[in-house]
Amino acid sequence: MKLCISLAARPSNIGTRFHNYLYDALELNYVYKAFAPVDLGQAVTGIRGLGIRGAAVSMPYKEAVIAMVDVMDASAAAIDSVNTIVNNDGVLTAYNTDYLAIARLLAVHKVRADSTVLLRGSGGMAKAVAAALRDAGMANVRIVARNEVAGRELASLYNFAWLPEVGAATADLLINVTPLGMAGADETVQSFSDATVAVAQLVFDVVALPSQTPLITAARAAGKPVITGAEVIALQAEEQFVLYTGVRPSPELIRAASEFSRS
Amino acid sequence: MKLCISLAARPSNIGTRFHNYLYDALELNYVYKAFAPVDLGQAVTGIRGLGIRGAAVSMPYKEAVIAMVDVMDASAAAIDSVNTIVNNDGVLTAYNTDYLAIARLLAVHKVRADSTVLLRGSGGMAKAVAAALRDAGMANVRIVARNEVAGRELASLYNFAWLPEVGAATADLLINVTPLGMAGADETVQSFSDATVAVAQLVFDVVALPSQTPLITAARAAGKPVITGAEVIALQAEEQFVLYTGVRPSPELIRAASEFSRS
Repeated sequence: MKLCISLAARPSNIGTRFHNYLYDALELNYVYKAFAPVDLGQAVTGIRGLGIRGAAVSMPYKEAVIAMVDVMDASAAAIDSVNTIVNNDGVLTAYNTDYLAIARLLAVHKVRADSTVLLRGSGGMAKAVAAALRDAGMANVRIVARNEVAGRELASLYNFAWLPEVGAATADLLINVTPLGMAGADETVQSFSDATVAVAQLVFDVVALPSQTPLITAARAAGKPVITGAEVIALQAEEQFVLYTGVRPSPELIRAASEFSRS
Repeated sequence: MKLCISLAARPSNIGTRFHNYLYDALELNYVYKAFAPVDLGQAVTGIRGLGIRGAAVSMPYKEAVIAMVDVMDASAAAIDSVNTIVNNDGVLTAYNTDYLAIARLLAVHKVRADSTVLLRGSGGMAKAVAAALRDAGMANVRIVARNEVAGRELASLYNFAWLPEVGAATADLLINVTPLGMAGADETVQSFSDATVAVAQLVFDVVALPSQTPLITAARAAGKPVITGAEVIALQAEEQFVLYTGVRPSPELIRAASEFSRS
């Protein structure tokens, strides 16, 4: 029996439920367990010493773990951030399945390389989105971030432009990677205006809790195709599952596992 | 949720089934998993780094692990052999629950310190038995071992005598710690003769597979009280369970878990 784990300062049981549900459904001889490591280096040594098959890596370990693995997959190297480790007979390879999921969703929605993009946000997930856009060949991207230092830094990494506010800007693709619309203080804030949404071709909100944000509601009302944060979460977990087991579950099974994991 | 593990070159699922059965029955938030470590040192580091609560240690790691723990409990120090590690907030304490189980069984059967003893065998388990006898105050012990070097070495450790063969020797307590009577080539061999059994007061056979050995059969036929290898295994596992969880299950529950673990 193979063990997969998660390493997070505050472990949630969402991943545990998602993976164990699929192991059961597919009759795979795996088990998944969440850990709050006492010491990250010792925990990674333990992955090697115990022959643990894989590990999800969450905050605050996504960068610190880079020095502890053997191989950085392009998905993790592109954004200097690891969220998945796979152990192949003692060789630890690091991936970032957020990046993989975003890249795949852009491909599924056939986003063209000459699309114009407004990307709102400047944190770690915004970096994953920006890298996926650049790697899909998109050059006409503007990073919108009130924090000028962070915004300019992210934009310059990928040779994108920076804007402090959306203002009257418009684009084919709108992407929100801020907490606007997330449960809490900013839950009712719509991250792009109705006017901006009206001239877009695709609207992508990374906020997952709830996945029905004011932006997604407005986009759907305007008849625009959307990508939700729930899709990103489910797909990045699916990519982890495939990396650990080599098995890609059916869309129906992924949906059932995602629902179970959040129930 | 706490994780307990086993470290063995060839993991069996007996411990996994025993402990998980009891966790379920007692509604304890624990899970148990068997590992074949890739590297013992890295595995023990992983116990620290992942905050794993406890580990059973099997062949061939029982001595090598001594240098990796923080505290040697008297049960492990007495025989320089570890079969259980308990992690208390990063402090690893090593125990030997075979020793603890044997000492407890001798106490339960009210074996007197002035009893005469014939102990047949000179391996690791014979050492655990010899130490428990010495620590219970017994001095009149003869180690019976065809291997003179091993037999004399074990005897001299505890200031006991050595005999190459049982011959006409008799004693109050007969203990077999050889493979005689174990499934395989020696399955039909009775480790002490009917004549020796006839004058004993208590007969103890450490062989557990099967626990109904020719010696135990002969002792029961002669109306002698017995201690079987199955009792040692169940009790040492019970002691591990108590060390990990602080909970001592009822005898009925231990019996059910033992039966389940071997089914």
